Amino acid sequence: MYEDKNQHWGVTIRNITNRVSRKAGMMPGSLVHVGEKRTEKPKITIIDYDRTNYHEKTVDDVEECFPFKDSSTVSWINIDGIHQVDIIEKLGKHFGLHPLVMEDIVHTSQRPKMEDYDHYIYVVLKMLWFSEEDADVKAEQVSIILGKGFVISFQEIEGDTFNSVRERIRNSKGRIRTMGADYLAYALIDSIVDNYFIIIERFGDIIEELENKLIDDPNPETLQSIHDMKKEMIYLRKSVWPLREVINGMERTESALFQDTTFVFLKDVYDHTIQISETIETYRDILSGILDVYLSSVSNKMNEVMKTLTIIATIFIPLTFLAGMYGMNFSYMPELGWKWGYPAVWIINITIFLSMYIYFRKKNWL
Amino acid sequence: MYEDKNQHWGVTIRNITNRVSRKAGMMPGSLVHVGEKRTEKPKITIIDYDRTNYHEKTVDDVEECFPFKDSSTVSWINIDGIHQVDIIEKLGKHFGLHPLVMEDIVHTSQRPKMEDYDHYIYVVLKMLWFSEEDADVKAEQVSIILGKGFVISFQEIEGDTFNSVRERIRNSKGRIRTMGADYLAYALIDSIVDNYFIIIERFGDIIEELENKLIDDPNPETLQSIHDMKKEMIYLRKSVWPLREVINGMERTESALFQDTTFVFLKDVYDHTIQISETIETYRDILSGILDVYLSSVSNKMNEVMKTLTIIATIFIPLTFLAGMYGMNFSYMPELGWKWGYPAVWIINITIFLSMYIYFRKKNWL
Amino acid sequence: MYEDKNQHWGVTIRNITNRVSRKAGMMPGSLVHVGEKRTEKPKITIIDYDRTNYHEKTVDDVEECFPFKDSSTVSWINIDGIHQVDIIEKLGKHFGLHPLVMEDIVHTSQRPKMEDYDHYIYVVLKMLWFSEEDADVKAEQVSIILGKGFVISFQEIEGDTFNSVRERIRNSKGRIRTMGADYLAYALIDSIVDNYFIIIERFGDIIEELENKLIDDPNPETLQSIHDMKKEMIYLRKSVWPLREVINGMERTESALFQDTTFVFLKDVYDHTIQISETIETYRDILSGILDVYLSSVSNKMNEVMKTLTIIATIFIPLTFLAGMYGMNFSYMPELGWKWGYPAVWIINITIFLSMYIYFRKKNWL
Amino acid sequence: MYEDKNQHWGVTIRNITNRVSRKAGMMPGSLVHVGEKRTEKPKITIIDYDRTNYHEKTVDDVEECFPFKDSSTVSWINIDGIHQVDIIEKLGKHFGLHPLVMEDIVHTSQRPKMEDYDHYIYVVLKMLWFSEEDADVKAEQVSIILGKGFVISFQEIEGDTFNSVRERIRNSKGRIRTMGADYLAYALIDSIVDNYFIIIERFGDIIEELENKLIDDPNPETLQSIHDMKKEMIYLRKSVWPLREVINGMERTESALFQDTTFVFLKDVYDHTIQISETIETYRDILSGILDVYLSSVSNKMNEVMKTLTIIATIFIPLTFLAGMYGMNFSYMPELGWKWGYPAVWIINITIFLSMYIYFRKKNWL
Amino acid sequence: MYEDKNQHWGVTIRNITNRVSRKAGMMPGSLVHVGEKRTEKPKITIIDYDRTNYHEKTVDDVEECFPFKDSSTVSWINIDGIHQVDIIEKLGKHFGLHPLVMEDIVHTSQRPKMEDYDHYIYVVLKMLWFSEEDADVKAEQVSIILGKGFVISFQEIEGDTFNSVRERIRNSKGRIRTMGADYLAYALIDSIVDNYFIIIERFGDIIEELENKLIDDPNPETLQSIHDMKKEMIYLRKSVWPLREVINGMERTESALFQDTTFVFLKDVYDHTIQISETIETYRDILSGILDVYLSSVSNKMNEVMKTLTIIATIFIPLTFLAGMYGMNFSYMPELGWKWGYPAVWIINITIFLSMYIYFRKKNWL
Repeated sequence: MYEDKNQHWGVTIRNITNRVSRKAGMMPGSLVHVGEKRTEKPKITIIDYDRTNYHEKTVDDVEECFPFKDSSTVSWINIDGIHQVDIIEKLGKHFGLHPLVMEDIVHTSQRPKMEDYDHYIYVVLKMLWFSEEDADVKAEQVSIILGKGFVISFQEIEGDTFNSVRERIRNSKGRIRTMGADYLAYALIDSIVDNYFIIIERFGDIIEELENKLIDDPNPETLQSIHDMKKEMIYLRKSVWPLREVINGMERTESALFQDTTFVFLKDVYDHTIQISETIETYRDILSGILDVYLSSVSNKMNEVMKTLTIIATIFIPLTFLAGMYGMNFSYMPELGWKWGYPAVWIINITIFLSMYIYFRKKNWL
Repeated sequence: MYEDKNQHWGVTIRNITNRVSRKAGMMPGSLVHVGEKRTEKPKITIIDYDRTNYHEKTVDDVEECFPFKDSSTVSWINIDGIHQVDIIEKLGKHFGLHPLVMEDIVHTSQRPKMEDYDHYIYVVLKMLWFSEEDADVKAEQVSIILGKGFVISFQEIEGDTFNSVRERIRNSKGRIRTMGADYLAYALIDSIVDNYFIIIERFGDIIEELENKLIDDPNPETLQSIHDMKKEMIYLRKSVWPLREVINGMERTESALFQDTTFVFLKDVYDHTIQISETIETYRDILSGILDVYLSSVSNKMNEVMKTLTIIATIFIPLTFLAGMYGMNFSYMPELGWKWGYPAVWIINITIFLSMYIYFRKKNWL
Repeated sequence: MYEDKNQHWGVTIRNITNRVSRKAGMMPGSLVHVGEKRTEKPKITIIDYDRTNYHEKTVDDVEECFPFKDSSTVSWINIDGIHQVDIIEKLGKHFGLHPLVMEDIVHTSQRPKMEDYDHYIYVVLKMLWFSEEDADVKAEQVSIILGKGFVISFQEIEGDTFNSVRERIRNSKGRIRTMGADYLAYALIDSIVDNYFIIIERFGDIIEELENKLIDDPNPETLQSIHDMKKEMIYLRKSVWPLREVINGMERTESALFQDTTFVFLKDVYDHTIQISETIETYRDILSGILDVYLSSVSNKMNEVMKTLTIIATIFIPLTFLAGMYGMNFSYMPELGWKWGYPAVWIINITIFLSMYIYFRKKNWL
Repeated sequence: MYEDKNQHWGVTIRNITNRVSRKAGMMPGSLVHVGEKRTEKPKITIIDYDRTNYHEKTVDDVEECFPFKDSSTVSWINIDGIHQVDIIEKLGKHFGLHPLVMEDIVHTSQRPKMEDYDHYIYVVLKMLWFSEEDADVKAEQVSIILGKGFVISFQEIEGDTFNSVRERIRNSKGRIRTMGADYLAYALIDSIVDNYFIIIERFGDIIEELENKLIDDPNPETLQSIHDMKKEMIYLRKSVWPLREVINGMERTESALFQDTTFVFLKDVYDHTIQISETIETYRDILSGILDVYLSSVSNKMNEVMKTLTIIATIFIPLTFLAGMYGMNFSYMPELGWKWGYPAVWIINITIFLSMYIYFRKKNWL
Repeated sequence: MYEDKNQHWGVTIRNITNRVSRKAGMMPGSLVHVGEKRTEKPKITIIDYDRTNYHEKTVDDVEECFPFKDSSTVSWINIDGIHQVDIIEKLGKHFGLHPLVMEDIVHTSQRPKMEDYDHYIYVVLKMLWFSEEDADVKAEQVSIILGKGFVISFQEIEGDTFNSVRERIRNSKGRIRTMGADYLAYALIDSIVDNYFIIIERFGDIIEELENKLIDDPNPETLQSIHDMKKEMIYLRKSVWPLREVINGMERTESALFQDTTFVFLKDVYDHTIQISETIETYRDILSGILDVYLSSVSNKMNEVMKTLTIIATIFIPLTFLAGMYGMNFSYMPELGWKWGYPAVWIINITIFLSMYIYFRKKNWL
C-alpha cells in the first residue's frame, strides 16, 4: 500500500512543469485546459440561501447561474469539472472575470495564490485528500471566486470535501446562514485546510511506524521508506507554504468584500496552516534524525562484523603459521623428534589464544 | 527513568495532529473537548482582591463567578478542568467571549498564541512541568483571559504552578496587590515561563551526563540517547518559539487593558523566553557536536580494529606461505636436506617479521 | 548527449568573471563588446503597429529606426547581434540611453537587473534555450529598453523565442495589438520566462531517470551525473533568483511607462518565476535525497561484501588451523595413529562449521 | 593548560539555567544574589571629575555615594562585589532604580541587554578575561547605570579591566575629562569589548596550532580539541550576539542622556563587536573545515591500511593454496616425482606474484 | 606556487585580531600605526584638475596639500604609506577629520565601512591584488576621504591600481574631468572593485583545475587543495560582504557631497559587488560539490579494494582448507591411497572456484 502512494508522489515531479511548457509560446490568457483529460459532463450545483430561505439545485446549462450574480441572497455556484473550457468562459464573461483568472482556473498546475480584483477575489488552492480506494494521496486544484453576494468554486472532479459545508447550510447549523458570502468562502477554505490535517496525521503514523521498524529490524527497505517520506515532505511543504501566504493575504486584504467579523475566522484558519507547516518541519527534522539513527546503526553493525573477523583472524593466523612450521619436511628439525614437542605446540597455541583473548577483552572488543 | 520520559515525548508526534483531524468536517466554533477525557468535576476557585481586601473561595456553580465581571476589585477565576464544555460555554457567554476563543480553550492542541479582542485579551500557552511521580515531562494547555478588572485562567488539570502567585496575593508580598489585572496575568505567565527553566535545567543535566558517558564508554545506547535528546529539543523548540511571539505580541499591544507600568515586567519575561530559546539552540548545537564526537570515536575504533587485523595478517600470511612451501612433498627439494635449512627458515621469518614491524612503526600504525 | 551538456555548463564558471576582468582598468561606460566574437552583420527588424495598422521591415542602416522614437504607434526594434558597438552607440545616442546602459547591453556577463531611467526602463535578462542540434543548454543575454511608445530588444544571436510574439502581432491574436509598448515588453519577458519551463522540464526528466537508474543499477557514473545535475541547479538558480527581483521591480515601479492594466500580467509572470525557483529548490532537495540514497546503497553493498568475507574467513580459518596441526611432522603425535582420528577431524570440522552457521544466523548476518 | 580551560567552559552549560530555576516561584523583583557566593566586603570607589578637578576615594558606607547623584561634575561609582544585596538595594533606592533592574544586577545569569528607563539607562554585559593564573577564560557580569551626570558600575569581583579608563581620567589623557557621563559609560564598555579581542586572539592561536597539528600528526586527541573549540565558539557566540544588540540599541536610543558627540564613539565600538562576531563565524567555518580535513585524513589512512592488507593477502593467499596442494599426502601425485616440480612451483609463484604486482600498479594501488 | 598563496592566507587568521588586541587598553582615537612597519618615506601626490586645467605634483611636505582644501577645482591627494602618523595627523587636523577617522586610517585591520561626517565622507576598503612576483594574493587597506572639492586617498604601499584613473584624468578620457570629486571617489572605488574580479577569476581557474584533477587522479593532496580553496573563500567572503554594505551605504546617503548624476555609477559598482559575492557563493557550492565527489570516489575506491580482497580470500580460503586436510599425517586416511584422489581434489577445487565465480558475477561484484 505504501509503495503505491509514493509512486503517485514520484509522478508529481513532472506535473510541476510538464503542463506549463506544453503551453509555452501561447499568448497569455488563452483558455486551454492542461489538466488530466476527463470526458464526463461538469456538474453545476447552485446553493442559494439567506437567514430564512434555502434553495439548492443542479443545473445543466451554465446560463442558469447568471441570475444569481446580483441576487440579494448568498449564492454558491459549485462546478465539478473544469475540462469544458466553454463553460468556464461563459461564466467568466458574465461574472466579469479577468482572462488570466479564467486561464488559471483551467490550468491545473497553479501555485496556490490569492488575487484581489477589486470587485471579486480569486483564490486558488491545492486540495489534498486520501483516497482509501487507491490507498493514495490525491491532489486537486480548487479555485474560489468571492464576489459581492456570491461564491463560485471550481473543482477538478466531484469530491466530498465541501459536503460538511453543504450540510451546515442545509441544516442551518452554526452561524453560516447568518453570515455573508465571505464567510462561505472562509468555510470552504477551512474545510480544505482541515483535510491537510488528515494527510499530516497519516504521515505521522507512517513516521512512527518507521521509527519502530528501525529499532526492531533495520534494513535497506526501511531506508528507502525514510527517503520516500522525506520526498513526500518536500512536496507537501511546497503546497503548504504558499497556502499560508494565501490566507495571510486574505487576512490583510482591505477589500470591501470581507466583513470585519470574518477576519477572526480567517485568523483561525491561518493559525491552522501555521500549525500544519510547523508539523511538516518537525517531521522533516524527525526524519533526518531517523536517517541518522539508521546510518549509525548500519555503521555499528559493520563494526561488529569487522571485529568478529579481526578477532578470529588475528587469533588463528599465528597459530596456523606455527602449525605450518612444523609441517615442513626439513630432514634436520630437532623439535620433531622431541617427545614433548607436540604437546608443547598445543600449549603454545593455547597460550597465544588466551593472551589474545585477554588483549581483546582489555580493548573492549569482546 | 530516562527511557520512560522519551517514551512520553515519542507519543507527542501523534498528539499534534490526531485531535484536530478527529474534528475535521465540524463547523468552526463548535465546542467539543478534544483533550484526554477526564471524569472529575472541574474545580472553580475565585480570588478577589485589591490593595486592602482579599477574598478566596471555591465555588460549585459557575454562575457564582458572574458578579465578579464588573467588580471594581481584581478578580481571578481559575478553572481546573476543561472537559465540561457547558461550564466554559456559560462562562464564555457571560464574559462575552468569541465562540472561537471558547473552542480554543477546550481544544487542547492549540499552538501558543495571543489574540486581542478589544475588551479582552486571550492568551493560550503550553505549561510544561516535570512530574517526579512518573519521571516524566508533562505538557498542559493553559488559557488566560485578561479583561477589565478580571483574569480567567483555564488549566487541564489542577496543578501547583500558580500556587506561588496565590501565596503572593494572600500574603500581600511584593507589588501584586497594588497592581491591576494585567499584572496578575503577567504573574501567571511568568510562573509558567519559570517552569520552562526547570525543564531546560533537567535537559542540561542529561546532556552533560551524555557527554561524560561518551568519554568513558561510548556505545550504541549512548547514540540512541543523543538522538532522543535531539528529538526532545525539536519538540521543546516547537513550544518555545511561539511563546516568544505571544509575549512579544503582548508587549506591543496597544490594548488599554495594559498599564504602562506592566510593560517593563512583560519585557522581563520576554527576555526570559529569549534566554530559554537561545539555550535550546545551544543544546541543539552541543548535541550535534556530541553526535559528531561519537561518530568520530566509532570510526576511530574501527580504524584501530582494522589496523590490528592488517598488522597481524600482513606479517603472518607471508610467513605461513613460506612454511607451506617447505611442507610440500616434492621428492627433489634440495633445501630440505640442508643442515641449516630449518634454522634458515626461522631466520628468514624473523627477518620478515622485524622488517614488517619497522615498516608499520614508520607508517605510524603501531 | 548528457555529458556534452554538462561540458557546456562546466565552462560557465569562467564566463562569469573572465570577461569582466579583461576590461578591468577601463573607464566605466566604455563600449567594448566582451561576448563571443561574431562576424555576421547584426539584423535589425522593426515592427510598428497599433490597433488597426501593422508594418514590419528589416533595415540595414540603424538610422532608419530613428523616426520610430516619436511615432504615436507602438514600435518594436529588435537587434540580433550586439558585436558591432557602433550600431548600439548610434541607437543609444538617438534614444537618449545612459552610457552605462549601452555598456551593459554589449557586455554579455550582466546579472539580470531592471533599471528605471525615468524616460525609459532598462531590463537585462538571461534567455535559456535548449539547442536540439548540440543537445546543449545555451544561454544568451537579452536587453530590453521600454520607452514611451517603443521597445528596443537586443539579442546576441538571432533566435526564435520572440517568434510567438511576432505571430500574435501579425495575426492580431489576443489583446497585444490593443495594448501599449509596456504590454509588448511584458510579452517579450513572458516568452523568455516560458522558455525556462522547458529547461526545467528537461532537468525534471533527467532527475527522474537518475532516480530510476539508482534503483536498477547504481554505479559511480550515476554519482557523477547526480553531481553534475547539482551543479547545473546551482547555475540555474543563479540565473533565476535575480530574474524574480527584476520582475518584482517592474511590478513595483511607479514609472508612468506602465499602464495599470499591465500590472496584472506582470504579476502573472512573477508567479511563474516563483514557480520556477521553487521547482529548482525542490530539485535540489530531491537531488540531495538521491545522493543520500546512493551513498547509503553503496555503504549497504560494502556491508554485504564485508559480511561475506567475514563469514567465509571466520568459518574456514579455524578449520584450516586444525588441518595444519595434524599436518605437523612430530614423531610423537598419538592421534595420528588412531583409527578414528581422521573421521574425528571431519566431525569436529563439521561441528565447527554448523555452530558458526547457527551463530551467524542468530546475528542476522545470513 | 588547554584542557583546564575547556573544563571551565564545560561547566557553563549548567550555569545558564541552574541559577534561574533555583529562583522559580519567587516573585519578580526580589533581590536574591544567585551568583557564586563570596564573603569579602564589596569595595566601593568613587571617582568624581570635571575638566579641571578630580577626586577619587574608596568608601565603606554606600550612603557616602548619595551626594554624587546630583553633583554637577561627572561621578563614577564603581562597586566590586554584588553579593551584599542590601548595598545594591540602598543605592538603587536612592538613585531611583526599578526593582527589576536591581534584581538583574545581583542575578548573574543575565543575557546582555540595554534598557532605557528615561532618567537612566541600564546596561548589563558579560566581561570575559583570560586569567593567566588558572590558564582559564573567566566570565563576569558587569552592570552599568548611566544617569544624568553619574555612572554606576557593578562588577562581580575586583578586576583590572577598568584600570585603563581610571588612568585616563587621573592623567587627563585624551578627551575623557572634557566629556560627560555618557562618554564615561562608552569608555567602560569599550574597555570590556577590547578584552574580547584578547580572547579571540587566544582562540585564533589555538586554532592555528590545531591546524598545524593536523598536518603533522592527526590523532583522536586533536579531534577532541577541535570539538572543544567548536563548543567554545558556541558559547562565545552566545555572549557576543546580544552584545551587538546592546550597543546597537545604545546607538539608536533617543535618550537625552547621550550627547551627539558620543554617538560616533558608540558606532566605533559597534564596529568592533561586528568584527568580533564575524571573526567568531570565521573561526566556526575554519573549525568545520579542520574537522572535515581530519575526518578525510582518517578515512585516507584507513584506505591505506586496507590496501596494504588487500595487497599482501591477495598475493599470498593463492600462493599458500598452491603450496598446500603439494603438501598433500596422496600416494599418487605424479608432479611430486618430477625433477623440475619444485622449481616449477617457485616459477609459478613468482609469476603470480609479478602479475599481481602489475595488476595493482595498474589499479594505482601501489 | 599555489602552496605559497595559501601560506599567505593562513597567516591572515592572526591578523584579524592580533593588531587590535595589542592596542587594547589604549584610549580611543590614539594614533598608533598597527600595520606592518615600513621605513620608506610616504609619497604624497596631488592631482588638481577641472574641465580645462590639470596639475600633478609630488610633494615632500604634507603642508603643501593644505591650499587644495578650498580650491574651486577637484583635488586628489594620494598618500602611499601610512606608517608616519604625524603626516596623517597634520593632514587630518587641517582637513577637519575626526580623531577616530585618523585612528582608523593608520589602523590597518579595519572592517570595510563608510561613515558620513556631514562635511566629508570616510570610506575604508580592502584592496586585493595578485602579486605575480610572489605568486601571492596581497591585501592592503585603502582609506578614501571625500570632501567638498577634494578626495584624499591613503594606501599602505604604492600600487598601480589607481593608475588607470590617473591616466583618464591626464588624458581627459571619458567624463571624469567634467565631473566633481564624488565621481573621482567613485572611480577609485570602481578600480578597487575591478581588481576583485581578477582575484575571483584566478580562483575560478584553480577550482576548474581541481575539478579536472579530481577526475584524472584524485589523491589526498587534491583534498588539501579543496580545503585550502574553501578557506580562501571564507576569507574572501569576509572582505566582500562589508564591501557591499559600504557601496550600498554610499548609494543611500543623503549627503550633499554626492551629485545625482553619480548615483547611477554607484549603482553600477554595487551591481558588481553583488556579482562578486554571488560568484563567491557559487564557488563555495561548487567546492562543496567537488569535496562530495572526492569523498564518494575515495569511498568507491575503498569498495573496490574490499571487493578484491573478499573475492580472492573467499575463493582460496576454502581451497586451502581442503589442501590442508589432505596434508594431514593420519595413518588411516583412505582417500590418500585412492588413485583418483589427487585429481578429485583438483576437480573439487575447480568446481568450488567456478561456483564462487558465478556467485560473484551474479552479485555484480565482478
